[in-house]
Amino acid sequence: MADDDLRNREARQGPSVILVEPQLGENIGTAARAMANGGLEDLRLVRPREGWPNRRARATASGADQILENAGLFETAAAAVADLRKVYATTARPRDMVKPCSTPRKAVAAMRSRRSGGRDCGVLFGPERTGLTNDHLVLASEVIVIPAHPEFTSLNLAQAVLVLGYEWFQSGNSRATDVPDRFQRDSRPATSREVQDLFSHLEKQLDAAGFFYPPEKRPAMIRNLRNIFLRTDLTEQEVRTLHGMIKALSGKKWEDLE
Amino acid sequence: MADDDLRNREARQGPSVILVEPQLGENIGTAARAMANGGLEDLRLVRPREGWPNRRARATASGADQILENAGLFETAAAAVADLRKVYATTARPRDMVKPCSTPRKAVAAMRSRRSGGRDCGVLFGPERTGLTNDHLVLASEVIVIPAHPEFTSLNLAQAVLVLGYEWFQSGNSRATDVPDRFQRDSRPATSREVQDLFSHLEKQLDAAGFFYPPEKRPAMIRNLRNIFLRTDLTEQEVRTLHGMIKALSGKKWEDLE
Repeated sequence: MADDDLRNREARQGPSVILVEPQLGENIGTAARAMANGGLEDLRLVRPREGWPNRRARATASGADQILENAGLFETAAAAVADLRKVYATTARPRDMVKPCSTPRKAVAAMRSRRSGGRDCGVLFGPERTGLTNDHLVLASEVIVIPAHPEFTSLNLAQAVLVLGYEWFQSGNSRATDVPDRFQRDSRPATSREVQDLFSHLEKQLDAAGFFYPPEKRPAMIRNLRNIFLRTDLTEQEVRTLHGMIKALSGKKWEDLE
Repeated sequence: MADDDLRNREARQGPSVILVEPQLGENIGTAARAMANGGLEDLRLVRPREGWPNRRARATASGADQILENAGLFETAAAAVADLRKVYATTARPRDMVKPCSTPRKAVAAMRSRRSGGRDCGVLFGPERTGLTNDHLVLASEVIVIPAHPEFTSLNLAQAVLVLGYEWFQSGNSRATDVPDRFQRDSRPATSREVQDLFSHLEKQLDAAGFFYPPEKRPAMIRNLRNIFLRTDLTEQEVRTLHGMIKALSGKKWEDLE
């Protein structure tokens, strides 16, 4: 292994994805795209049926070209996993052998917890139609079964790779994925004072319109109204919009009353 | 709505999947397959570009025909979600609006916890190339963002649907997916007595072969050997296989020694 290869190896993220005898180039491309979604980098191909490189793989990779360009090409699955220290095999169907078994979620957690951070791990995926053979399965010390409805357990190749990448990416984000709790425009959250002023404006107009009737219900009606707006965590911009809305509505009303 | 429709509605599982203006029939088919993987049943199509029904959708559904046959066809996204009580929109890109946002995992947990078990929920998926417009997003009270690598956030349509279905299926399996801890042949786990007998056999043969040298190291060597086999939780069948292996190996040795 050249020095450059070694450095690449050290730098790359996550487990290797090993596609054993993939049949269609487009599936290699969509698998590469799925790897990119999950931040996986190391693709290894064992005897792709249509040869390599493959034009259709490029077409379906949707920009995950780097992964295809760096993909390793191997004659046997054994050669493709030779440098790895922990090999998993994906299969939908239990075979006639005894082997530890886990879900993608449990498997990536185990990979992440290794000293290597998972770089010395790899996951074997079988050909589209037939899946991995028993000869492939004995290269792996553990099997990954992707949870799926019992009546429909077969995933296509890229989708199986996606699940691995998706779980890999999620497992590395302690904040359960770096997704914000909500989208926000540029506007900052409104202050309590701003919200209270909005309520004053609204309730003054409603008073003028005779909305709070009978009078003894007024406090409860106000509470209910306020709660509607309080639940939504208004932004400063939205508060201004609502001020405008109230003004427009009540302005019209005043005109109507003339 | 006919009585039959109502009954279907009550019986079906999980949230509706609403594909808004999907461009390619094959993507509808693979999305249906992904739904089947996750046990989702209700597919709704808004103005599919190639018309409906679609031959290529059938070809790529890999047996998820029932979902395609039962798919609802709508002229607008608003009509497609009209009967739902909680609508989510999927998008990779935050838009210029304020909206609660969650991951697929959090969203399906919330759906499951509803009194309806999620049957009154739906998830909008946009067209392949462009995604949902702001007009679609305002049909939804919440946005689902699929966690993905920041440099590669775009999933294809079927893969986005797969992630929803995958999380839906997993969230319903308290035993973290009904996947066994390991695959097992018919053979039962070996008893401790059977394993101890195996050790006796092995160590007797190794003693005869002069393996344990120097003698003071014998106890530690035996411990190490036993631990290798103890870690693997042998089955009764495997114990017999190992007996045979030891016999075969040591038998050969005896002959060699003659």
